[in-house]
Amino acid sequence: MLYLVGLGLSDETDITVKGLEVVKRSSRIYLEAYTSILLVDQAVLEQYYERPITIADREMVESNSDEILRNAQVEDVAFLVVGDPFGATTHTDLVLRARELNIPVRTVPNASIMSGIGACGLQLYNFGQTVSMVFFTDNWRPSSFYDRIKENRQIGLHTLVLVDIKVKEQSWENLARGRMIFEPPRYMTVGQCAQQMIEVEEERKEGVYSRDSLAIGAARVGGKTEKFVAGTLEELCTQDDELGPPLHSLVLLGRRAHELESDFVRHFAIDKEKWDKIWKEEYGKH
Amino acid sequence: MLYLVGLGLSDETDITVKGLEVVKRSSRIYLEAYTSILLVDQAVLEQYYERPITIADREMVESNSDEILRNAQVEDVAFLVVGDPFGATTHTDLVLRARELNIPVRTVPNASIMSGIGACGLQLYNFGQTVSMVFFTDNWRPSSFYDRIKENRQIGLHTLVLVDIKVKEQSWENLARGRMIFEPPRYMTVGQCAQQMIEVEEERKEGVYSRDSLAIGAARVGGKTEKFVAGTLEELCTQDDELGPPLHSLVLLGRRAHELESDFVRHFAIDKEKWDKIWKEEYGKH
Repeated sequence: MLYLVGLGLSDETDITVKGLEVVKRSSRIYLEAYTSILLVDQAVLEQYYERPITIADREMVESNSDEILRNAQVEDVAFLVVGDPFGATTHTDLVLRARELNIPVRTVPNASIMSGIGACGLQLYNFGQTVSMVFFTDNWRPSSFYDRIKENRQIGLHTLVLVDIKVKEQSWENLARGRMIFEPPRYMTVGQCAQQMIEVEEERKEGVYSRDSLAIGAARVGGKTEKFVAGTLEELCTQDDELGPPLHSLVLLGRRAHELESDFVRHFAIDKEKWDKIWKEEYGKH
Repeated sequence: MLYLVGLGLSDETDITVKGLEVVKRSSRIYLEAYTSILLVDQAVLEQYYERPITIADREMVESNSDEILRNAQVEDVAFLVVGDPFGATTHTDLVLRARELNIPVRTVPNASIMSGIGACGLQLYNFGQTVSMVFFTDNWRPSSFYDRIKENRQIGLHTLVLVDIKVKEQSWENLARGRMIFEPPRYMTVGQCAQQMIEVEEERKEGVYSRDSLAIGAARVGGKTEKFVAGTLEELCTQDDELGPPLHSLVLLGRRAHELESDFVRHFAIDKEKWDKIWKEEYGKH
């Protein structure tokens, strides 16, 4: 059996009891570690499970899935995924390959950022499609997120913006010379995300949102040090110190929000008077 | 401290290790049991926790929250919610009241149907807003779900339809006579949901979807007996036996779906040829 086991959002104790039982009895344990991270290290997990873990990077999952699936017709293999196994990133290819090999697959669900974000006080019913924000470079500034946000905003819905993480990156020089030396991991912050959002609005000028649009910065959702900061996109450009370490994500509010959502969220507002003023002018409309 | 503890989707072992630790050390344990249910009984949970549980019905949570929060400034109270505490139903009022009483609140997230539904093979990125379907009566047939689905379909997004559950209902006669006798719980099926969807389309005739629109029926998502059946809305009207016991939910596909999503989902199709034909004509378009 191939088990896809969700680890939840924060630390080693966020695994479910069912998931932990699967891990303890599996022959091999892989950890998918290229689309998200837990807030604890691999060593902490290994000690907690009392088992060794193999880190599965993107190349291994995409090109060498048969090694992961080896002998899973007759023994249990656990493939651990931060969050929910079918959350922000799906592992469709791995499941399709398992089906071809007649390997049964079972999922052990867990919290995903896509539902965990509800802790900020906005109702999940009022969210539209989720978008991703990548680190812009001089010549790569993809703005398809802007079209998706436009669709959500036209209906009046909130948008969850998931931000980029870069792990196991090689510099151009190391790549060219074939040196397996990797850069330190990089995690996008709410400030960087808000800044890139403002830049794209100023380039495309379709009025999808503005510097004064209300948003929420979220850090370490589901963890003991979970932190929310609410304010305008402009205000959120400078709140990274307040939010603290990764992982971050951002929610852009939609106008269809309910009064009760504002009552909950204003508790996190940088400037409550400003929040109330903008809310009254533009939000809570159905 | 007030702890909002998610129980996940299926049985007693879906609680997280962190959540179980909270339950074991709390002075009082409440179970919110009017918006969703686990697939196991209260007695199973009590035996597993080795602790008594108080069932919190809607009236208690909405009108008597101070009893739940009693003394939580100095002792730990666990409020258990099936799924994620901020999933399909939020408990905003309870948290706002706790804030007023200076009671710290912490959330222990868990799987929600709103992310767990990803196990059907559709990408969560391609979902629009979630809607709810209630049991229609002769004189109450709310169709706001239809407007929400229309918005999602116009963009090309999938829609998760959460179906009604009725617990602790009184008959009109028992209500009138003040007898605290309750009807057996009722859980809407995929068949009933699909039927009501078709009826509303035939009443409103806005062409939001048709009998031949592709959809997925889901039962007991995240559980050992999880079951998906894919087909047209019309086909899903008669698949309740195949799907089995509650809880059910339904996903209506959007045209923006990716080829890989169909590859995954067609595995569950009642009639694979029909699925492929309709898919080719109407879906996978961006």
